Amino acid sequence: MDLVPLLAESETKILFVVADGLGGIDSKGRGTELEAARTPNLDRLAKQGATGLTYPVAPGITPGSGPGHLALFGYDPVKHDIGRGVLTALGIDFDLKPGDVAARGNFCTVNSDGEVTDRRAGRIDSQEGARLVKMLRNIRLDDVDVFVEPVKEHRFLLVLRSKKEALGAQIDNTDPQRIGVLPREPSAGDDKSQITARAVSDFVEQSREILAGEEQANMVLLRGFAQLPQLASLREKYGLNGCALAVYPMYRGIARLLGMKVVDCGPDLDSEIGALQAAWSDHDFVFLHFKDTDSRGEDGDFEGKVAAIEELDRAIPRMMELQPDVIVVTGDHSTPSAMASHSWHPVPVLISANTCRVDAVEVFGETACAGGGLGQMLAKHLMTLALAHAERLRKFGA
Amino acid sequence: MDLVPLLAESETKILFVVADGLGGIDSKGRGTELEAARTPNLDRLAKQGATGLTYPVAPGITPGSGPGHLALFGYDPVKHDIGRGVLTALGIDFDLKPGDVAARGNFCTVNSDGEVTDRRAGRIDSQEGARLVKMLRNIRLDDVDVFVEPVKEHRFLLVLRSKKEALGAQIDNTDPQRIGVLPREPSAGDDKSQITARAVSDFVEQSREILAGEEQANMVLLRGFAQLPQLASLREKYGLNGCALAVYPMYRGIARLLGMKVVDCGPDLDSEIGALQAAWSDHDFVFLHFKDTDSRGEDGDFEGKVAAIEELDRAIPRMMELQPDVIVVTGDHSTPSAMASHSWHPVPVLISANTCRVDAVEVFGETACAGGGLGQMLAKHLMTLALAHAERLRKFGA
Repeated sequence: MDLVPLLAESETKILFVVADGLGGIDSKGRGTELEAARTPNLDRLAKQGATGLTYPVAPGITPGSGPGHLALFGYDPVKHDIGRGVLTALGIDFDLKPGDVAARGNFCTVNSDGEVTDRRAGRIDSQEGARLVKMLRNIRLDDVDVFVEPVKEHRFLLVLRSKKEALGAQIDNTDPQRIGVLPREPSAGDDKSQITARAVSDFVEQSREILAGEEQANMVLLRGFAQLPQLASLREKYGLNGCALAVYPMYRGIARLLGMKVVDCGPDLDSEIGALQAAWSDHDFVFLHFKDTDSRGEDGDFEGKVAAIEELDRAIPRMMELQPDVIVVTGDHSTPSAMASHSWHPVPVLISANTCRVDAVEVFGETACAGGGLGQMLAKHLMTLALAHAERLRKFGA
Repeated sequence: MDLVPLLAESETKILFVVADGLGGIDSKGRGTELEAARTPNLDRLAKQGATGLTYPVAPGITPGSGPGHLALFGYDPVKHDIGRGVLTALGIDFDLKPGDVAARGNFCTVNSDGEVTDRRAGRIDSQEGARLVKMLRNIRLDDVDVFVEPVKEHRFLLVLRSKKEALGAQIDNTDPQRIGVLPREPSAGDDKSQITARAVSDFVEQSREILAGEEQANMVLLRGFAQLPQLASLREKYGLNGCALAVYPMYRGIARLLGMKVVDCGPDLDSEIGALQAAWSDHDFVFLHFKDTDSRGEDGDFEGKVAAIEELDRAIPRMMELQPDVIVVTGDHSTPSAMASHSWHPVPVLISANTCRVDAVEVFGETACAGGGLGQMLAKHLMTLALAHAERLRKFGA
């Protein structure tokens, strides 16, 4: 529901700590990573506060980073979409402008009939990818500026920026998502995208010619054509002056999309905390993103994820010194190391504030949180709860 | 969903006991008021039945009495709105007619420039309020009958009833909600409300003249312009012949809006129970409203709220003597005495009926209910559950 009519002025501060991929599943009889980790500080917050489990999108749905974070900030992740092309641009700090059309590119291998034989061109390394990107930068299109940026290994970013007419982004993937067939023609889904389709077609043909001499990466596949979405800012939606601390560009990019100020911080949690301390007095909502929990989960590294959680736990006292009126600790989705991937399992959450209804939960873990006072809820309601605890919402109706 | 196609005839009876503002938060280490209270009868019902927590509107949203009760009776409180003006009229048993425009009025203080200096005119007492209302009753408007009724202290009710053309109620508040500025002009949001806006403008100007000699209450502010909403009755929605027992006029008014028969009862719970016994045989749905839990919560009186809950508990055996097929005990929202106001915290609920799936909960309290078999649900689903347990709903689909 629209909270704007309910917003009340307040001096309170909310700290949102997002441990990426926090949730896990039981592994080797040791419980989840969060349960196996020694987390006295998180346990104390759980004991003093209210706990539960959140569904980022819906039961059974495994979220990507975009939907996972949109939900945490109270944006319905089913209604609002950050396309793959845009996420790719955000992930490398590319300065995407409104109207730009971004797509995720793969170098691939095609045979003499033009059929795809390897969608990732043998997973060439990043150095090789960068060399090939440099070659594609010679491409020139009519009325459209082209930007090609290396991402990692066989992946690159393509951005089209019109010098004349506005471009649409309703373009089907040229990536057929399987081998043994030709790449698809870029087809337009609406009138505005016809110009884009012609530009993409031209880009693909020039790429084919430029890469013709390559052994592995002799063609490109494109998918996830998208433009910057129109999203109300945290200020517009909640009257919040938000700030984001994140080591990885993608999360900084998502925060920027939502109008948060993105503060420069160093390469690790320690430097994030330093930046948090510096930014605290100027903001009433701070989003602190911690990546390592997800990275170790994706690696299938149970012990590594446990260690990452313990590192986060040790940082909690430094956050609490700032005396946030409301602190929320949760994840954007689960990444069980036993699955080495994102998963659909609901995510443990704790809220600590003076107005919490304290529940019976005394430790921060999935099994305990399943019986917590917040129950199992959609993640998109978390921001409303945080605002309520921060005394930033008036009564609804008389 | 629309339950009408599923409705089955039945002789069963449902008793809905609503302890206003029932939910609390932990206070002084004694748990909530409900947890601190000695409630052997409610505990027995909880043990024999199913329990859970309900969200009247949505997580984090603090409901007013209107949305809180609409949800309990299965009306989506976000879609259906009882405006503040209408609630004010219901709260003093004013006989509002369809088409009437009602608004909540405040006497206020303005300075010589007309700027509001006190939105409540120093919170004048009710006697003084009544004296001023009497003066405003001299106001006459073209083609519109005016009713001014005292409410309490600085508050009054304004009702406009057209003698000719239909009135709209899309009128912005004249109350600027802050001091140091002029009252707002009443502006119309649609064509039908233009006539209303002119009448309101005329009323405000005449009020200013009449009150010019007053020291404190020398002006009026108006807000919450509204008309009786169009709501399906309990009979239309559920085939129920409903009856309401409530000491306070506002709850009787809400019940009347939903087509319930409002039975006269005395000033306290004891007299409500007497009226319940008398009305029982003629109705298949009875709503019994108990106000004291909310009043003591609003007072910030933990012990008082505990005592009110214990009084309700002692009345339970007399209700059970009537052998309701389904009894629901819950609140319309939480009113923690620690906050001395309505809050967003979910509300404990118990359902007792022969067809309950008995859960592990053995006492009626917030922490216990968080682990109850009903889970955490939107309050608007409660009526459907009650109908199901009353064997008043057929199977959906073949």
